[in-house]
This record gives sequence, structure tokens and C-alpha cells, in this order.
Amino acid sequence: MPQDSYLVGLIGSGIGPSLSPALHEREADRQGLRYVYRLIDIEVLGVGPEAVGDLVRAARDLGFDGLNITHPCKQLVIPHLDALAPGAEALGAVNTVVFQDGRAVGHNTDVTGFAASFARGLTDAPLERVVQLGAGGAGAAVAHALLTLGAGHVTVVDALPDRAGGLAASLNRHFGADRAAGAGLDALPSLLTGADGIVHATPTGMAAHPGLPFPAELLHPGLWVAEVVYRPLETELLRTARALGCATLDGGGMAVFQAADAFRLFTGREPDSTRMLADIAELAGAAGVRN
Amino acid sequence: MPQDSYLVGLIGSGIGPSLSPALHEREADRQGLRYVYRLIDIEVLGVGPEAVGDLVRAARDLGFDGLNITHPCKQLVIPHLDALAPGAEALGAVNTVVFQDGRAVGHNTDVTGFAASFARGLTDAPLERVVQLGAGGAGAAVAHALLTLGAGHVTVVDALPDRAGGLAASLNRHFGADRAAGAGLDALPSLLTGADGIVHATPTGMAAHPGLPFPAELLHPGLWVAEVVYRPLETELLRTARALGCATLDGGGMAVFQAADAFRLFTGREPDSTRMLADIAELAGAAGVRN
Repeated sequence: MPQDSYLVGLIGSGIGPSLSPALHEREADRQGLRYVYRLIDIEVLGVGPEAVGDLVRAARDLGFDGLNITHPCKQLVIPHLDALAPGAEALGAVNTVVFQDGRAVGHNTDVTGFAASFARGLTDAPLERVVQLGAGGAGAAVAHALLTLGAGHVTVVDALPDRAGGLAASLNRHFGADRAAGAGLDALPSLLTGADGIVHATPTGMAAHPGLPFPAELLHPGLWVAEVVYRPLETELLRTARALGCATLDGGGMAVFQAADAFRLFTGREPDSTRMLADIAELAGAAGVRN
Repeated sequence: MPQDSYLVGLIGSGIGPSLSPALHEREADRQGLRYVYRLIDIEVLGVGPEAVGDLVRAARDLGFDGLNITHPCKQLVIPHLDALAPGAEALGAVNTVVFQDGRAVGHNTDVTGFAASFARGLTDAPLERVVQLGAGGAGAAVAHALLTLGAGHVTVVDALPDRAGGLAASLNRHFGADRAAGAGLDALPSLLTGADGIVHATPTGMAAHPGLPFPAELLHPGLWVAEVVYRPLETELLRTARALGCATLDGGGMAVFQAADAFRLFTGREPDSTRMLADIAELAGAAGVRN
């Protein structure tokens, strides 16, 4: 049987609203591929995050070609894999598993996805001094992407200063000393005064957490502003920044490019990311959460 | 998400050459359905037949809509199901599992598939005295189908007379006393002299077991001859019977209608069995085993 048929899925908790099935299946349809993307929601199954190992093995046995992995399983899945791609190993988190010849290999397309989105949407943006708000899972992936892109220095700011410091220490181990530092929220005003740009990587601005992640007056026209939130695509932060004249990047690009990179890993085929960007604008709008 | 996407599979041993993926996926394509059919081969996985319970649970958890089940798991799967359709319960064998609202329901479309094929290909054939050769799994399904179709009496002949007697006893329990009897191979000549027709339900005639299941001189023009083997579609038995002027039925119809009935159970949509019969003629030919 020729391999023109693909079976993939997403393991995570509370993933019912995920746009991944539609993003993958629409692109596959345009390429004429037989492609099913299933949601495997541990909350629906009533099992804990530690079940991820059994689910990955079961997916391999039942003929899945690969999996996406999301919260809260991105770290827990690692001991159950046979190998890690370098990016996933550096980050210590996996969002994509590819089954090949019975082996399960972990990748991280959050990192490559943010990097691709940034390179496309904020081409030539200065990267000497970058501030990043949020040191959680998305924040760790974004910080790795920024330093991979050549950022001179990234200051990670988090409401939990210890979490920011821990991420910064890990970044310095992987990218060289003094490339990153951690800070608490109180440092944000002075950091933004001297920064080239800020990446926002907390949930604030999502439909369930509306509002601004920090006071609008900390923004200034010389700053670029990149967003990780993509539902809605235009968050209050991006709207405010655009009104000031800041260059901006919405979170849809990261969502699309992480999906596109996973699609390439699953199928060996090149996705058309321009068409996928049009899809996400339509899908995020259709979900009724776009402003 | 609208349910226009179907994920199904086949659990069994040594199922690599199965035509089920192609039969299901071709019909789904014509209906515009997203449909993936995966082979889950316990021989490839290196697990025993008793693993079928775990595999069925895993398939349910990972978002499969249903499964076909074949040798050697058709009986072993039963304790792992939540309910059985009446036909599967009477036969004590399941070849189709449908997942619905978290429940696994067992069906048997070998029985309904043979009945549909017979009604189509040997319409109005006399059914007063039928001989069936072979009391294994396929034989049991075919005998249930014959009696469901209204056969007056079925004599089950097997190289193992005890196995024939056991099947006959079970048939009499379900369909009423004196509807069935068991016999050894030595009874075949006298049985065929007075029979309306014979169903052949052993592996003889398959590519790996060429030849005739019984001496050609036992055939006579008044007999109809139905075959369960479908690779090749034209077995030596059918070729010999046709040359004598017997009405014949090849095994492709049972293979198609069991698949069509499973397709209907999985999707709730009506398959086009005429198109599927054309598919199996092409597929069995393409597999290089048709004469």
C-alpha cells in the first residue's frame, strides 16, 4: 500500500476547541492526501497526564504516523520516546512525535514555528535587547526561538521571578552565558524603555482572560510587539500597540507554522503556509472569538 | 466538528494482504468522506490474540469510530464489548465493532454479507437440502446465513466430524431442531447426490492451497455451488462447476457485502455495493492471484 494515507492526533487536556485538526486536514485536502487528525483529550478520557506514555505506545501500535502533544504532557512524554531532535532536547519539551520504523522521535515545532513566524512577519526587526513576558511552556519555546534567531539578549519577565530566573539559567546554559536574564513584573517599565521589542507569552488577552497584560503607557512607538495568543488574532495588546505605530506580529503565525512544521514531519511534504495563514484567519473568526 | 471524518481499522493476525482498506477507502472517496482504514496486525506487533481487548480499548480512546476483527480474535473480543447485536450473539463471533458514545457494540457482517451475496447472486436457488463443506469460522457464519435465508436443512461436512457435529448442534439450538446435521468427509458423495447446492467454506482453492476440495466427479449439473474463497475469484472448484453448467457464486460477493455492511455500521451511510463489486474484481486481479 502506498503511503498516501496519514493518521495523526493531538494528546492534551481540554483540547476540544483546538484548531489543529482543521489546519492539518485542510492543507492535506489541498494536497490530495488521505489525512485524519484526531483529538485525544485526557480530560475526556478521565486519565491523568502520566497516561501519555501508554497513549503514545497505543497510537504507534494502532497505526498512527505521528502525534502532536500539548499541555500538560509536553515534558512527561519525553521518557517514553526513543530519540529527541536537538531543538526538543535543548528545550526539554516535545510538541510533535513522529513514528518511523517503530521508533518514536520527539520534535518541537513551537520553537521552529515561532521562529518562522517572526522571520516572516517582523523581518529585520532589531533583536539586540528583547523583553519576553511569560516564562511558562510557550515562553520557554519562544525564548529558545529568539536566541536561535540571534537575539543579543532576552530578559524573561514573569509574575513568578523564580520561574523567570530558572528559564534564564537554562537559556544561558544552552546559548552561552549572559544571553538571558530573569526578572519580576516590577522591572517591566525600565526594561521596556530600553528594549527593541517585546514578546507576550501569557494567556492574557485570550477570550477567557481579556484585557492588557501590562499598562498601555509602557508601550512606545520604537518597540515591536509580538503576541503568542491567537484566539482572538487581534488581542487588546496588539490593537493598542498598532494604534501607537508599533510593528506587530499576531499569534496566528506561530500557530500556523508549528502546524506546518508538524505536517512536514508527518508527511515529508511541503505545506503551503500562506494558505494555512488564510485558514487560521477564517477559523479563528468562525470560532466567534475574533474581535 | 461535524462527523464527516472516519477512522477505522482491522485487528487480526497476518492481515497484510487484506483488501479491506482499499474496499472501504475507495467507497468513502466516492462518497466524499474523510476515511482512514488501518491494519492492526498482532503478528507484526508481536502480541498474542488475547491482546485484542487492550487494542479495542486503545482504539476507542484514540478516536477510532469502529473496527473490523478477524482471525484469531473474533471470539476472544466478545468479553471486551459492552453489547452484541443479535446475529453476533447467536453466532458467538464478532467481525465488526462500533464505538458509540463510549460503548463498544459487536456485530457480525460475515453472516449478513454472505446472505446478501447469496440473495443477489443465486436468487431463487432452491434451499431445501444444502451441503456445506467446512465448519470453521467462515463456515459457522455461512451456516447461520443459510438458515436465516430459510434453508430447510444444512448438513455441515468437515474433515473433523466432531467440529461439524458441534456446529450443527449449535445451529439446531438457534434455528430449531433438525435444521442441521454434522458429517465427516466420507458422507460427501451420497450427500451431494441428493442436494440442491453446496457451499465451500475451507481454504482449498486459495493461492496458497490450490486444487479442488473434493473430487470433480461429485459435482452434477443440478447443483448450485457457492464459494467463500475470493483470492482468486475464480477457484478451480468454480471453474469446474461452471463447465458442468452449475449455477455458481464466487467469494467476492461475501467479501464485498461484509465490507459494505461494516461501512454502513461505521458511517450510517449507504454504500454502493455494485461499485464495490467492481473494486474487488480489480483488486483481486491486481493482487496477481486471479486466474
